Amino acid sequence: MNCEAIIPWLDVIRWTDEGLVPVIAQDANSGKVLMLAWMNRQSLQLSVEEGRAVYWSRSRKRLWRKGEESGHVQKIKDIRLDCDNDVILLAVEQLGGIACHTGHERCFYQQLKEKQWVDVESVLKEPVDIYNK
Amino acid sequence: MNCEAIIPWLDVIRWTDEGLVPVIAQDANSGKVLMLAWMNRQSLQLSVEEGRAVYWSRSRKRLWRKGEESGHVQKIKDIRLDCDNDVILLAVEQLGGIACHTGHERCFYQQLKEKQWVDVESVLKEPVDIYNK
Repeated sequence: MNCEAIIPWLDVIRWTDEGLVPVIAQDANSGKVLMLAWMNRQSLQLSVEEGRAVYWSRSRKRLWRKGEESGHVQKIKDIRLDCDNDVILLAVEQLGGIACHTGHERCFYQQLKEKQWVDVESVLKEPVDIYNK
Repeated sequence: MNCEAIIPWLDVIRWTDEGLVPVIAQDANSGKVLMLAWMNRQSLQLSVEEGRAVYWSRSRKRLWRKGEESGHVQKIKDIRLDCDNDVILLAVEQLGGIACHTGHERCFYQQLKEKQWVDVESVLKEPVDIYNK
């Protein structure tokens, strides 16, 4: 007889005081780290149910179904939790090949070079062409 | 004549109210995401000067030279900043091949499977053998 209580998976997570957890999205094919965003309890549950990344937009204070405007949806392939239960790592298929609202493939396009941040990756699509369709 | 003021690289970063920035460490060779930790201004400056990851330990409230006890130093190969200037991505050479204090290769060893977090990666070295030398 196993009397060990199983903690529901959402309760295992150590949410911040604001009820959030940082989420790293990594491209499942290329291995590139695409972005970091935040989820709350509801958005993580929806992400699992819908199989796509649903973040919590801290600036807009609402659910943000990644790709809802741009079409740049992130289909979830794998969900990991770290040793401290306070960071999530998603492996995703990045539809459209663009994760960043700036039109770059990913958000980490600024590289530190001789004490300056330098853009070292190209804009694949101009934001005006992504959002004003 | 170029009158544009250049903002010092540390001032470009949008630090949290606590003066921190989240930092993702990725293995430069395997592409695996190893961990997420935090840096303050001083620890980021030291990281650049010393060429190794120096984090700010939020629990211990002090500088944490990754590997100072374990020897599992992270040598920095590349430093990136995201589009919002509030997340850093490091490409690192992970000495000892272990990033996590649990003795796993990396912190993201718990995978979500049928609404449970399951350990899916091995402990490479027992913590007692890492820290009590």
